[in-house]
Amino acid sequence: MPAIVRFRTCVCRYNRGLPELRKDPVTGRWVAIATDRAKRPGDFIRQPVPPATARICPFDYGNEHKTPPEILAYRNSGGRDQPGWRVRVVPSKFPVLGIEGDLNRQGEGMYDHMNGIGANEIIIETPDHAATLSDLTDKQLEEVLWAYRDRVNDLKRDQRFRYILLYRNYGEAAGANLEHPYSQLIALPVVPQRILEEIEGAKQYFDFKERCIFCDIIREETRVGTRLVAETERFTVIVPYAAHFPFETWILPRHHQSHFEEEDAPTLANLARMLRSTIRKMEKVLERPAYNFALHSAPVQEHTLPYYHWHLEIVPRLTRVAGFEWGSGFYLNPTPPEEAAKFLREVGLP
Amino acid sequence: MPAIVRFRTCVCRYNRGLPELRKDPVTGRWVAIATDRAKRPGDFIRQPVPPATARICPFDYGNEHKTPPEILAYRNSGGRDQPGWRVRVVPSKFPVLGIEGDLNRQGEGMYDHMNGIGANEIIIETPDHAATLSDLTDKQLEEVLWAYRDRVNDLKRDQRFRYILLYRNYGEAAGANLEHPYSQLIALPVVPQRILEEIEGAKQYFDFKERCIFCDIIREETRVGTRLVAETERFTVIVPYAAHFPFETWILPRHHQSHFEEEDAPTLANLARMLRSTIRKMEKVLERPAYNFALHSAPVQEHTLPYYHWHLEIVPRLTRVAGFEWGSGFYLNPTPPEEAAKFLREVGLP
Repeated sequence: MPAIVRFRTCVCRYNRGLPELRKDPVTGRWVAIATDRAKRPGDFIRQPVPPATARICPFDYGNEHKTPPEILAYRNSGGRDQPGWRVRVVPSKFPVLGIEGDLNRQGEGMYDHMNGIGANEIIIETPDHAATLSDLTDKQLEEVLWAYRDRVNDLKRDQRFRYILLYRNYGEAAGANLEHPYSQLIALPVVPQRILEEIEGAKQYFDFKERCIFCDIIREETRVGTRLVAETERFTVIVPYAAHFPFETWILPRHHQSHFEEEDAPTLANLARMLRSTIRKMEKVLERPAYNFALHSAPVQEHTLPYYHWHLEIVPRLTRVAGFEWGSGFYLNPTPPEEAAKFLREVGLP
Repeated sequence: MPAIVRFRTCVCRYNRGLPELRKDPVTGRWVAIATDRAKRPGDFIRQPVPPATARICPFDYGNEHKTPPEILAYRNSGGRDQPGWRVRVVPSKFPVLGIEGDLNRQGEGMYDHMNGIGANEIIIETPDHAATLSDLTDKQLEEVLWAYRDRVNDLKRDQRFRYILLYRNYGEAAGANLEHPYSQLIALPVVPQRILEEIEGAKQYFDFKERCIFCDIIREETRVGTRLVAETERFTVIVPYAAHFPFETWILPRHHQSHFEEEDAPTLANLARMLRSTIRKMEKVLERPAYNFALHSAPVQEHTLPYYHWHLEIVPRLTRVAGFEWGSGFYLNPTPPEEAAKFLREVGLP
């Protein structure tokens, strides 16, 4: 053992405003929220996503043969794999999972595995290569949401699929590989861990309170108001109390519904409007940041659940996840949710 | 609802080798492991961490006054906050948590919070600004591990701390802010989620089998051999069966021990040697990648646990975590663990 020289230390002058630990009410995770060093929008390194440059793109009109044959399209004109579509869904050319075969669950020594059966689809949101999501009209975005819904309702008939992920990466920093506006779908034979954690947490709350925790969150946030970004008759937009990331924002339906794919036309229309205005607010406050959003919905083979509540989570990519966050699942959020919500709430849109 | 044009699709020619879904035996998470598109070391975008450039650094000899006063130092000469140290531990100048105060657990409407009490310390591993971990001698690295151990044993006497994270970020892509070689410590009043998941999974296994799952993993990997990177009398180095990331590597003590800080001198000496050689292998195979490592150890206020087994997890930063991984907790690993292990096992070190 090396010789130790140890000193008592006064660190007080390095500790001004204490950060807060907040518990995610759904998953039970604790998140550290900085208060003293709180980062305002201008404090993040700005890396606005550059405007798309015209280049040969498999998602443009006339290049339909460069993708696998389409699964679904909403069209003005043209036949299968021809121009004239407004929204087009194709299988991924580089699927992470394979659509054909049995799950074939097996042991392998002490371990368990199964075949990587699943579907991986691309929802091409518009033929306009250079558009961003916020350039779409509400009506166009509504059709994108219809494509989400239609694909889930089609795929859920396949009993091998337990969960269908719908998500969008915008900007290279958020994992987008192509400029053309698109969302992605992955159908899985298992429920992903983060969703499972949410479902289990929500179920525990329900067992205890006999109320849906997300319905309670909506009521609480409407009452308190400080983390509210926007509200309509059908949706509430908030920065969650224990947001893991700065400017993380959730869009929740005000009515209880566990499955996104059960929603009706007026709800999808309103969601399109809220999603677009939320993204526009982020673009204005944070200078067109890279972002991810993901739909959190109940496992597709489950009937309506009284304890789970679908919602959309949007996270601008402003901070790099550091070593301790990756290694531990313990997150540090440098922007208080109340401050982020205030910026998003108060920013004016033309 | 828009008019739908739907087609039946043959995607077979886009599905060659099926990926595999593997279950993490500890946490129960499913990970997709690519087989067909398997990425070999040369397939990753290489971003070798650039060599350190001499610049004014608060961790160099002569700049001791630029850090908060030291907590611990192993010295050849000099007094407190003077040059002459070999390893030096200081509080972080920008702590994420504050050391002084009560936890003060409280409700806030329907939510729960407490003060962000904790410690955030920097372990300066050497006075040599430009060294990397693999430039240190085994003896130097051993002293770094002694500093880890000493700090944990000191901090655990503070009953407010439930968990002590020890981790290292190397390279900007892995979250390192300074070039000078350093590790970090964060003491927390809560157990982070990823660790909790591991502990709970390990406990379930123990309840069922009455054996430590990590001890079983070591036996299985020694028997199978395909995921083995190296072995000594005291340590086993493996690429885990359901590795979340390409070239993720674990170093596990062969004897059962839940708490890292309980280890003795010969064990720390051997760990230093194994850690250094593992990092050197990664540097050779992957061209000095950015990486994170984190010590996974039992919560500090717990007595020895029969079901948990401390270990070190190393993850080179080769892939960006994409939108669906962040949103879902579902990971795709493009490199089969058997292939990664083979590269690391077979690379020659001078």
